[in-house]
Amino acid sequence: MRLATLKTTSPDGQLVVVNDTLTQCQPVPEIAPTLQAALDDWARCEPLLQGASQALQAGHARHARPFDPAACHSPLPRAYQWADGSAYLNHVELVRKARKAEVPATFYTDPLMYQGGSDSFIAPCDPIVAKESWGIDFEAEVAVITGEVPLGATPAQAAQAIRLVLLVNDVSLRHLIPAELAKGFGFFQSKPASAFSPVALTPDELGAAWRDHKLHLPLRVQVNGKPFGQPNAGVDMSFDFAQLIAHAAKTRRLAPGSIIGSGTVSNKQGGLWGSKVEHGGVGYACIAEVRMYESIEQGEAVTPFLRDGDLVEISMHDDQGRSLFGSIRNRVQALPE
Amino acid sequence: MRLATLKTTSPDGQLVVVNDTLTQCQPVPEIAPTLQAALDDWARCEPLLQGASQALQAGHARHARPFDPAACHSPLPRAYQWADGSAYLNHVELVRKARKAEVPATFYTDPLMYQGGSDSFIAPCDPIVAKESWGIDFEAEVAVITGEVPLGATPAQAAQAIRLVLLVNDVSLRHLIPAELAKGFGFFQSKPASAFSPVALTPDELGAAWRDHKLHLPLRVQVNGKPFGQPNAGVDMSFDFAQLIAHAAKTRRLAPGSIIGSGTVSNKQGGLWGSKVEHGGVGYACIAEVRMYESIEQGEAVTPFLRDGDLVEISMHDDQGRSLFGSIRNRVQALPE
Repeated sequence: MRLATLKTTSPDGQLVVVNDTLTQCQPVPEIAPTLQAALDDWARCEPLLQGASQALQAGHARHARPFDPAACHSPLPRAYQWADGSAYLNHVELVRKARKAEVPATFYTDPLMYQGGSDSFIAPCDPIVAKESWGIDFEAEVAVITGEVPLGATPAQAAQAIRLVLLVNDVSLRHLIPAELAKGFGFFQSKPASAFSPVALTPDELGAAWRDHKLHLPLRVQVNGKPFGQPNAGVDMSFDFAQLIAHAAKTRRLAPGSIIGSGTVSNKQGGLWGSKVEHGGVGYACIAEVRMYESIEQGEAVTPFLRDGDLVEISMHDDQGRSLFGSIRNRVQALPE
Repeated sequence: MRLATLKTTSPDGQLVVVNDTLTQCQPVPEIAPTLQAALDDWARCEPLLQGASQALQAGHARHARPFDPAACHSPLPRAYQWADGSAYLNHVELVRKARKAEVPATFYTDPLMYQGGSDSFIAPCDPIVAKESWGIDFEAEVAVITGEVPLGATPAQAAQAIRLVLLVNDVSLRHLIPAELAKGFGFFQSKPASAFSPVALTPDELGAAWRDHKLHLPLRVQVNGKPFGQPNAGVDMSFDFAQLIAHAAKTRRLAPGSIIGSGTVSNKQGGLWGSKVEHGGVGYACIAEVRMYESIEQGEAVTPFLRDGDLVEISMHDDQGRSLFGSIRNRVQALPE
């Protein structure tokens, strides 16, 4: 089934089920008012939500209404946990290559993950509000929303806790990162609010594209209407979602509604750490990577970070070309310097 | 007023007002079912909660019941935002001194802060469940809970958003920290769930002890019933709570219910970066600091990290010796290795 959250006057919005063409939705207040409430009581809610979803799909929903992604919040408008992995090591290798450093051997066995802030996400079609001088970039990723995960869960146990799959734009402020990471405590100001796709799906909706705890489909990124990247999220993912969740739960339980991200999707495409779309490659899912590629190939980065009015679109389509999650469409609204 | 959250079958528990001797409490479901709900609608709830608090204090509450800290959750059992500063630079200076390194000049002007995980906190009297080999330590701190803070808030604006003050035990796994910080993305596994004091207070309850956006009282730490530290939280705090909140809000709004911590309270006490309680000093608010002090003074750290069954107690008392927040009492329950 497909779930979304409509904006209301409440910070948590209203949970709706969505049909498979993403054209109709139906509120389900009799089951759960919000997605967090449904996740908190999933054993009861999940079959009821499946029933409501099937009724909508069959045209039997009494209060069906047109589905408008622009009226959506992120599925969890605020969450209790947002932890983002860095599972595509091509991204890390590219960063290191650009500065002529080695990738530590442990990076291939121990996932990189940062603790994100989750008190208020950007809605899927809301603006990114930031200063251009902060170096505004996107990171297109896949994420999962979990149920309860016990402390010390194995990857197999962690896999059982995956409730929903969705896309994320992990907004990054590149010019704030070096000084912040140099302080030693990780990201904070350099990782402002992220945006999620309008629709979250149960893994069964993904069919064969969901296997090995990975999503095997291209992630489509456009900037100002032009193709920027379409790396396959199932390729070169060194740690699958079960491993990422288990990493997050090593020393703490994870509560229902925890969101675990994949990190920027990035395909190696042979020895060049990827290639731009214009050069026939699958491109990239963040500007930083194309700039590193340019640095390696041309000696200098030429693609600028985002500027006022720039539009980033992130989506994923199935083999029939159907949009699975709806589109993230974030336009930059630059703050005065 | 004083607020607390009783454990119920709901993950968010039940909001109660508490009297000034912390002996009586009263649920307030007609005002707000949970503390998060009250914070989400503070303009409406705050005067009503003040009224309920005054009625309880005057002995007019109809449903008053004995207040039992052991029946409490942390005031926000799960939160949308937990960001912890490191405002007592003695802590940082001590770490650096122990490894003969300089403190970067920017540390005196730009607050250190890490993004914490907040999906499930430990209750004030619940155990710390961890492996001894992880190097289990506590960090006694003061924290504030905010209302809405706009992106780019000044310290003066940030100060207006302080709703409640409370204590925190920021549990830290010392043996996991070096390898985790070396990866460059900050803390994750090394900072498991924190515990908060049973009671949270509005700043007006602190009288003259709350000034300059700091709490000017000793923070009392005991380990296994013996004094471990009593540093004054108003002394040597290089960044006040208004500055810490403004730091957190530089690139994102903070939603109501955001918790901002002070970092481990630490007093310099002259040139020795503090002194142990047995040596007549105010002691320390974490084991790591006393171990660094021992390393500097004696050439080796002798105080062990926490072991199975060890009890940490954190509290703060006013000038009349009255406990302000109730006690955090976390006993270690060691996991098998």
